[in-house]
Amino acid sequence: MPLAKLCAKKLSSPLMKLCYPNLNGKLPFSNLSNILDNSSLKFHSCNPHITCRGLSTVALRPQTITKDDKRDFMAVFPDIVRDLTQLNPGISDLSTLISKIMQYNVSGGKKVRGLTVVYSYRMLAPDHALTPENIRLAQILGWCVEMLQGFFLVIDDLADQSITRRGRPCWYRNPDVGLRAGSDALLIQSGTFQLLQQHCKDREFYIDLVELFLDAVRRTTYGQTLDHVSSFPNITHLTMDRYNFITKYKTSYYTFHLPVATAMYMAGIYNTELHRQAKSVLLEMGHYFQVQDDYLDVFGDEEVIGKIGTDIQEGKCTWLAIVAFQRASPSQREILESCYGSKDPEKIKKVKDTFIEIGVPAVFHAYEEETYNLITRQIQQLSQGLPHELFLTLLHKTYGRKQ
Amino acid sequence: MPLAKLCAKKLSSPLMKLCYPNLNGKLPFSNLSNILDNSSLKFHSCNPHITCRGLSTVALRPQTITKDDKRDFMAVFPDIVRDLTQLNPGISDLSTLISKIMQYNVSGGKKVRGLTVVYSYRMLAPDHALTPENIRLAQILGWCVEMLQGFFLVIDDLADQSITRRGRPCWYRNPDVGLRAGSDALLIQSGTFQLLQQHCKDREFYIDLVELFLDAVRRTTYGQTLDHVSSFPNITHLTMDRYNFITKYKTSYYTFHLPVATAMYMAGIYNTELHRQAKSVLLEMGHYFQVQDDYLDVFGDEEVIGKIGTDIQEGKCTWLAIVAFQRASPSQREILESCYGSKDPEKIKKVKDTFIEIGVPAVFHAYEEETYNLITRQIQQLSQGLPHELFLTLLHKTYGRKQ
Repeated sequence: MPLAKLCAKKLSSPLMKLCYPNLNGKLPFSNLSNILDNSSLKFHSCNPHITCRGLSTVALRPQTITKDDKRDFMAVFPDIVRDLTQLNPGISDLSTLISKIMQYNVSGGKKVRGLTVVYSYRMLAPDHALTPENIRLAQILGWCVEMLQGFFLVIDDLADQSITRRGRPCWYRNPDVGLRAGSDALLIQSGTFQLLQQHCKDREFYIDLVELFLDAVRRTTYGQTLDHVSSFPNITHLTMDRYNFITKYKTSYYTFHLPVATAMYMAGIYNTELHRQAKSVLLEMGHYFQVQDDYLDVFGDEEVIGKIGTDIQEGKCTWLAIVAFQRASPSQREILESCYGSKDPEKIKKVKDTFIEIGVPAVFHAYEEETYNLITRQIQQLSQGLPHELFLTLLHKTYGRKQ
Repeated sequence: MPLAKLCAKKLSSPLMKLCYPNLNGKLPFSNLSNILDNSSLKFHSCNPHITCRGLSTVALRPQTITKDDKRDFMAVFPDIVRDLTQLNPGISDLSTLISKIMQYNVSGGKKVRGLTVVYSYRMLAPDHALTPENIRLAQILGWCVEMLQGFFLVIDDLADQSITRRGRPCWYRNPDVGLRAGSDALLIQSGTFQLLQQHCKDREFYIDLVELFLDAVRRTTYGQTLDHVSSFPNITHLTMDRYNFITKYKTSYYTFHLPVATAMYMAGIYNTELHRQAKSVLLEMGHYFQVQDDYLDVFGDEEVIGKIGTDIQEGKCTWLAIVAFQRASPSQREILESCYGSKDPEKIKKVKDTFIEIGVPAVFHAYEEETYNLITRQIQQLSQGLPHELFLTLLHKTYGRKQ
């Protein structure tokens, strides 16, 4: 069977229709069928071996994010904290507090978003631009992305009354913080724009970056707000359309689009068509990432993910809940309706058991497989200016993750 | 006695030393004594009658903010709400929520900051620039300043657990809002930058405005944070130096500097010396405004100011508390130490009574009078490019205010 037909068949499967209701069985790129039948394209398997481009600067363009990258990235953190606290006039306890907030809420975590900026820059920049100064600037911009992430988490954990984050009590639960957490989060947010100004003001891409970050704040806030107001028991909110919107805004923009678009601007890529193509693939990855997040919230290992899942008790509009409600028998639906959104541990357990009974984990794994293939095909269609290895690496970093 | 000597005497008074510990008895402008002895300068009395410049465009440059200005300003509000909700893709309940948040937290209040942008622009712009389109843009920028104010109030009221604001329950106290208020506040903040982009992107001053607003967010956050962590019972925090720092950051930047600097940029004034001079006077006015705010929190009419004062029960680092602790007898100090920062209504009353016994209101009125004179003199020293009427009007709007 030709690839285009095979693909069309996959896209019209009930699962893909469920997950991508707006595609009407078509991939987002209209010229897909031609491209898919082009035998020169190689498809990457789920256990990838990436062929590196024939570059003389292999060391500068590693195939993935290494431990050394992480170490080098971490080494910049004290410098940015110094930037944020030295510029701050008078009253030393404000400096101490900013430093403490940064240590607690920004320095931890996997730092995938921040490292993605550095990795993307290495993959996108012309050879002559890969100077130590520029790599360092990419690291600083990586920390800016991490700071935006820390800022959102502090605000969100307070709103959700979450318990733990990155294996520790959420910031607002610390003595002497409490409801002041919102204001503390703003210190992180403000620091982000301060660093952009301090390190990029004389660069051509400065205003593009500022707008990109402001845009990420706005869109993520849209998503967080809708997420808060979309909880059960309003059953009409549990639709895949709404879920897709929330996910795109709450997660995809700042997690996938922001780091890569930052690197693109820094690498001198302003072409709007390239930005559009990159955004399309990255938002798709973000969706996939959030579905995984929903799965891990319920079925992940708390020790590994570093937080205690609260989606069920908060009655969140999650991928799992939507799939479960759609596939539930009348009696299963009755259990879900009476238990979903309750803090009672027994009811939470009942919901989990019902999810398993309905077969939600199996549906998730099938979704994961199909989405992986779908995104891989999208990557193959990207223009020359966007190295496929970069996007495939990001996809492989996401696929099958346990945290 | 020559004016310079009279002024020097006033500056060396114990009250002025208390309030301006860093001036060492000198006014911020070093050439003051020469200027003060220049008999061509006229001093404005506390009951001012402003002489308008000989302008042919008197109607375009009114002497103060009128009722018509307020009406015209209000008329723009529905348009900016439409901007914020129309651009927003999909999911109509997000639009509804943004509209509700804007109505509740931005449309009310005195709108002095927003109107100041419009008034300042009328006073600063060259005649040919005073077109209906530009006045409308100044009104939109005025709303941007009001939005930043609304954003800060939502965050701050949550952190302070305040009860009422503008005569209504604080936003977070509304059913279904609660801890989500932080996220809702971000919708207002994001909307501000969205409007700047939408209406000013093609203007020369766009990046200056974005930086000005980002700067205002950062500085105000510094002030709010320090305000939160500076409460009694840590008596070492109740110093005038700390108070001056908090006030400058928490209030002065966004209340006085932001509106006028916005208008200056819009009027094409980029000269850094003019911006420095304007900022110096405006921050002084902001300090004065905050001292008044502290006074009104304790001695103001709740009906008029639209909120219930909470400074005493929260043990805030206020001008009143610092003056009271400095002037208290041992027995009065004992009362303050045991009652300040308590929620017990009897203790709150005891603090108020002790403030009166110590004579804090009288010290406040003397401070108000002296500060008015000090700022008036500063205004007289401003360069030609900064019309004195503008700054005097702002001062008169502030002097003796009851809300």
